[in-house]
Amino acid sequence: MTEIAAASDRTDHVRLAPVGLGRWAAVLARGAMRGDVIELASCFTRSPERRAAFCEEFGIPRSAASYDELLADETIEGVIITTPNDTHADLVIAALDAGKAVYVDKPIAHTLDDALAIRAAVERTGQVFAVGHSARRLAGSRVMRRWIEDGALGAVSLAEANFSNERGLELTPQTWRWYADKSPGGTLIQLGVHHADNLQYLLGPVAQVSAHARRLHTAAEVPDAVMCILEFRSGALGYLGCGWASPGIYQIRLQGTRQNLLYDLDFTHWDASDQADDWSTLVSQAYRQPERSEVALPRTDMFREQLDEFALAIRGEAKVEVGVDEAIRALAVVHAALESSRRDGVAVALAPLLG
Amino acid sequence: MTEIAAASDRTDHVRLAPVGLGRWAAVLARGAMRGDVIELASCFTRSPERRAAFCEEFGIPRSAASYDELLADETIEGVIITTPNDTHADLVIAALDAGKAVYVDKPIAHTLDDALAIRAAVERTGQVFAVGHSARRLAGSRVMRRWIEDGALGAVSLAEANFSNERGLELTPQTWRWYADKSPGGTLIQLGVHHADNLQYLLGPVAQVSAHARRLHTAAEVPDAVMCILEFRSGALGYLGCGWASPGIYQIRLQGTRQNLLYDLDFTHWDASDQADDWSTLVSQAYRQPERSEVALPRTDMFREQLDEFALAIRGEAKVEVGVDEAIRALAVVHAALESSRRDGVAVALAPLLG
Repeated sequence: MTEIAAASDRTDHVRLAPVGLGRWAAVLARGAMRGDVIELASCFTRSPERRAAFCEEFGIPRSAASYDELLADETIEGVIITTPNDTHADLVIAALDAGKAVYVDKPIAHTLDDALAIRAAVERTGQVFAVGHSARRLAGSRVMRRWIEDGALGAVSLAEANFSNERGLELTPQTWRWYADKSPGGTLIQLGVHHADNLQYLLGPVAQVSAHARRLHTAAEVPDAVMCILEFRSGALGYLGCGWASPGIYQIRLQGTRQNLLYDLDFTHWDASDQADDWSTLVSQAYRQPERSEVALPRTDMFREQLDEFALAIRGEAKVEVGVDEAIRALAVVHAALESSRRDGVAVALAPLLG
Repeated sequence: MTEIAAASDRTDHVRLAPVGLGRWAAVLARGAMRGDVIELASCFTRSPERRAAFCEEFGIPRSAASYDELLADETIEGVIITTPNDTHADLVIAALDAGKAVYVDKPIAHTLDDALAIRAAVERTGQVFAVGHSARRLAGSRVMRRWIEDGALGAVSLAEANFSNERGLELTPQTWRWYADKSPGGTLIQLGVHHADNLQYLLGPVAQVSAHARRLHTAAEVPDAVMCILEFRSGALGYLGCGWASPGIYQIRLQGTRQNLLYDLDFTHWDASDQADDWSTLVSQAYRQPERSEVALPRTDMFREQLDEFALAIRGEAKVEVGVDEAIRALAVVHAALESSRRDGVAVALAPLLG
């Protein structure tokens, strides 16, 4: 927050360009515009009509007619990529090689091969690179981590997380999320990957994953019911459940020797991230005291904060919190889980997947 | 409820005798005395002082000086066994062979070998036999099942259950629960086995189990952190989490295509089962309607109801709901989970364990 506050009277805004101008680009653009760090200076998607509409909606002065044209624009310092997962690697690497900083939405890519290629490009170019694992910035995540760090929870033995919604029931072959080669893991790579980051943010690196993934009620090619058991390097056990065939759930529970915490979010308000915390509760429960207390949650603004942080990092005024390594760790949980499910649930180690 | 109501002006009470006169025997005795079906006519434990105290507390006219003496008492129709798990088989089989009906607390036994020996004795003697998987009788369990049966939930894809408390932090070598040979699975066989029954009551038989069991913070020999993924024959996935090193949790969540249900119980009031439902909530959440509604829960009385049912079954006036097969299915989940954990999480089928 200090960096962002210090930047609020900035006159030389960081000039960024959204790429892929769908629903999520608009959510992020609104987040950027709530801050005073970023200027959306150009944008790109293949459809000229959607470019024009996006420019008009967000007051963007111009757009590029091709991705190459955008990357050749020397006034643009970085790109915000929200295209389908299977297009991330090509677009990210091209931007990095063109000297642009890159923010890409989660997951970093659909495959670990693509993710590792991105890492090689980040290392080769030295460009600023950030991945939109924004959920760890929700007030509940921040407070849970603080309670772990200051010892209020005691030793955590079990952590459970669930992210589910009804999207799998509504998929059509017209959307890339329908297809296993574009979105392997279905609900796990779209929803579960958030908790794969959250849980590692809270409890440290995952060592191995046992999982079962099933396609039960969706007509799409991908799983709509996934359950994973994570073993953390600390020895603690984590559960990650995600469904795509039920009303929405977003929860994290931590069980410590001194205290439990239960975080619950109605994520239908997630897009307006300056208000998302208002739709969340964090409840604590202490050793030998079954009565529960609600923990006060400050307001955060995850999309604004992560984009401001990215922009300031371009200027050397901030450090990216979720870079290539954190994002690969989250994606590796997804792919370890899918491999485990193919092998009847046997635990799959993460280390060999990390390159 | 109809059988129980019909029995309320009964004059010829069913004559039962508690065996093992610890804390749980007292909880069940209070449950039996809330009804008007059962007369506690004798009792047995090895300590004469505890026998005398129990007789006085519950107005029991006499006690037996040995188990053989109790079983030779022709006025006693059945026994209520609440001794340590590893003593169940010998006591149950001796009682069945002596022509007594048997109610035994959950789990049916500590090993599947013992459980299968009990089944053989039940089949050989034809005696009435019941196991105290009482939690399925809580109002929340009953309403959840009704909502599944009448289609209100739609198709259920994910079910999650957690039963945890701090007991593992407080175990001493003086208690049988400390020892792996007497209480294999620790928190899983003591707490988790309740949900192994609840989930099969709700969703039908489990086909296979993947699990990881860890001993993290207890000084005892047994696991205090266990996570299991169950695959039901229906194809649905279930999660069963149980800890013994955190404040208490008792929850069941069902995710259906039309509706989710979340059941939450403060089980510190569990012993007074005529009031336990007052400490529980059942919340529903409908498709595309993130707002949640609380579902009204009638009051039940699980201990009274199951003991009345057992007693009436002795007279041929009721049918035992949780008999030897249901109890073995719950115990088999425990042992499949422990076997899976020894084999690194690979799924273990239940069928071969059922004898």
